[in-house]
Amino acid sequence: MIAKSMESYVKGSSAIRAMFEEGGRLAKIYGKENVYDFSLGNPNVEPPEEIRQSIIDILQSEEPTFVHGYMNNAGYEDVRNAIAQHLNKQHGTQYTERNILMTAGAAGGLNVILKTLIDPEDEVIVFAPYFGEYRSYAANYGAELVVIPPNLPTFQPDLKKLAESITAKTKALIINSPNNPTGVIYSEETIKKIAEILTEKEKEFAADIYVISDEPYRELVYDGAVVPYIPQYYKNTVIGYSYSKSLSLPGERIGYLVMPDELSDFDDIVSGATTANRILGFVNAPSIMQRAVARCINSSVNIDVYNKNREALYNGLIEMGYECAKPEGAFYLFVKSPIEDEAEFCDMAKEHRVLIVPGSSFACPGYVRMAYCVSYDTITGALPQMQEVMNEIKSSRNEKQ
Amino acid sequence: MIAKSMESYVKGSSAIRAMFEEGGRLAKIYGKENVYDFSLGNPNVEPPEEIRQSIIDILQSEEPTFVHGYMNNAGYEDVRNAIAQHLNKQHGTQYTERNILMTAGAAGGLNVILKTLIDPEDEVIVFAPYFGEYRSYAANYGAELVVIPPNLPTFQPDLKKLAESITAKTKALIINSPNNPTGVIYSEETIKKIAEILTEKEKEFAADIYVISDEPYRELVYDGAVVPYIPQYYKNTVIGYSYSKSLSLPGERIGYLVMPDELSDFDDIVSGATTANRILGFVNAPSIMQRAVARCINSSVNIDVYNKNREALYNGLIEMGYECAKPEGAFYLFVKSPIEDEAEFCDMAKEHRVLIVPGSSFACPGYVRMAYCVSYDTITGALPQMQEVMNEIKSSRNEKQ
Repeated sequence: MIAKSMESYVKGSSAIRAMFEEGGRLAKIYGKENVYDFSLGNPNVEPPEEIRQSIIDILQSEEPTFVHGYMNNAGYEDVRNAIAQHLNKQHGTQYTERNILMTAGAAGGLNVILKTLIDPEDEVIVFAPYFGEYRSYAANYGAELVVIPPNLPTFQPDLKKLAESITAKTKALIINSPNNPTGVIYSEETIKKIAEILTEKEKEFAADIYVISDEPYRELVYDGAVVPYIPQYYKNTVIGYSYSKSLSLPGERIGYLVMPDELSDFDDIVSGATTANRILGFVNAPSIMQRAVARCINSSVNIDVYNKNREALYNGLIEMGYECAKPEGAFYLFVKSPIEDEAEFCDMAKEHRVLIVPGSSFACPGYVRMAYCVSYDTITGALPQMQEVMNEIKSSRNEKQ
Repeated sequence: MIAKSMESYVKGSSAIRAMFEEGGRLAKIYGKENVYDFSLGNPNVEPPEEIRQSIIDILQSEEPTFVHGYMNNAGYEDVRNAIAQHLNKQHGTQYTERNILMTAGAAGGLNVILKTLIDPEDEVIVFAPYFGEYRSYAANYGAELVVIPPNLPTFQPDLKKLAESITAKTKALIINSPNNPTGVIYSEETIKKIAEILTEKEKEFAADIYVISDEPYRELVYDGAVVPYIPQYYKNTVIGYSYSKSLSLPGERIGYLVMPDELSDFDDIVSGATTANRILGFVNAPSIMQRAVARCINSSVNIDVYNKNREALYNGLIEMGYECAKPEGAFYLFVKSPIEDEAEFCDMAKEHRVLIVPGSSFACPGYVRMAYCVSYDTITGALPQMQEVMNEIKSSRNEKQ
């Protein structure tokens, strides 16, 4: 008998993953090139060549028992220091290795900081639409997830509802900007107001409320858009970063937490997070990838590829009559379903070999997510199919009239 | 404010890690070569050369978005299949990739299977002495850890007490053989009797009791000793394996779970564990290391180095009058403290620049652990120091008489 807490997972399984496997099945029938899979955020842009070269250099020049061995659970000091210096240049901060903890991607980092902060029955707030895994991460530590409904059509968070939702039990607010699934960047004005609200509520309840900023898409922004650096607006901010997207290394599980000195109970949080990294079973972030990313601190993937996809897919869909907020970052388009039931819309698209994810997976029914980290051929192949889907919907509407 | 559950960790911190840092401090004062650090199980033997060559080959011949990308949360199918075939050859089993789940080392694997199986207030049994992290792992899922006291001086588990300790709440028994901290291998007779007891108790309580076999030291055995393969004796066995020691890759966090077909609720356990790998934040085991270990399936580190250390340290200490069960596996010596308070003994050793860990960290006071995964010079340098410690203890005894 498995644990009761796991039964619903086993029954339900993740909609995104199910779609991923459906893609494999359809590809076997129709050929891979005739299935247009927008279901998974698995980067199709190659990691920068420096990654390959760095790993080879490390293997050829550094001592193997050091490269593959245990280090401090927080990560190699020189690696953490290199990241601290890099952030200092970008944001004018004064971090040292003390402020950085290497993690198994942002998913690992988020679990580490939640384990560090959360007591059972604490409340963790998220803005819908949100990455569905947050619900599981909060549940891992017994937290209650409090969902602020989506603010349509801009997807900038609903701040009035935020203020109303904070209680004495609120321990953290998860922010994810650039956002999965919308691609929207929360504006500086939004961040300032969030900071004001939280500061006021911290006083009202005489308690700390931490922002956990999940930033795997920080570097994936278009048209010169700026992502506000939240610690500059709100002191109780912990950042979870990942190289999964910025260096196309999602399988390697490498990222870090930033814990600024200004955090309330900074020492305890650093010590707690380092311990949490160990006792959750991560022990430490994978060692050779720690050393590799430190050598590639100024590298990035070619986001022009994503931008080209974004323009083609967004413009194509808008011309057909689909509605969508134009994403400023990440590699997702969050499209309004032309029919009420977006799961039915996803099924129609699947009939046309286009795989997309229902917005219900992100607590935002009536919308669908298209991950455009795919080949350009997938975009150009999918657009005529999406046109056909729209045609079918329109003719069905006409029949009803 | 950090979580209440983390406060004791932050206060207490791990004794092993504290010792590790003490080692660094003493090394700065006396020089690294004059500090004899037996505190940490960090392999000093180099990974086999094939590891280096495999990683370079992979980087030069496989597609980067595949090598560093997401795969099924359970791991690459070809990697899992290669491991299944390898185990089939060794143990005459009939595993396929379905039976293997790639994990972030054994620590990751143990957390995954505990998350899958454990409901709050379930009981998990361990035999003392045991790896102290088991207490944290069980606590992560709200389980009660039930400790069977050590069976001195052989350290074969106390089976009468095992039978008495099993209740309707018992969900799992963790077995770790070759054992950390004793180096003892549980005999075939022991395993057979454990299987009998568990089978009887499963009937008595009409419930499944799972053995979780933590096997990072399976390959590190001496004098031709044989480690019984537990699934051959007891069907409800899940194995947690790690390449940390067998390939000297502890920092890389790579290992796997074996979930045999014979498990009660096999499908649910596989599905649950795959989901647990994702939602705990591991997502998947580090991708390039998955591909590397599959290419090095028949490789192993040179354990002659450990064996030479074992003989020299064991024989040296026995000659001085220390008492110790001769380890058949792993790279630990579990030495009886010549004075009642083993923490005081550790302090005396530290005065002589020998760093060892008190048995209390393994629920076995009165003993100390020496990890002999160190250079031979560390052994030969430490022995005269341990002689002096023994001399001091003896002369102090004489003074008292």
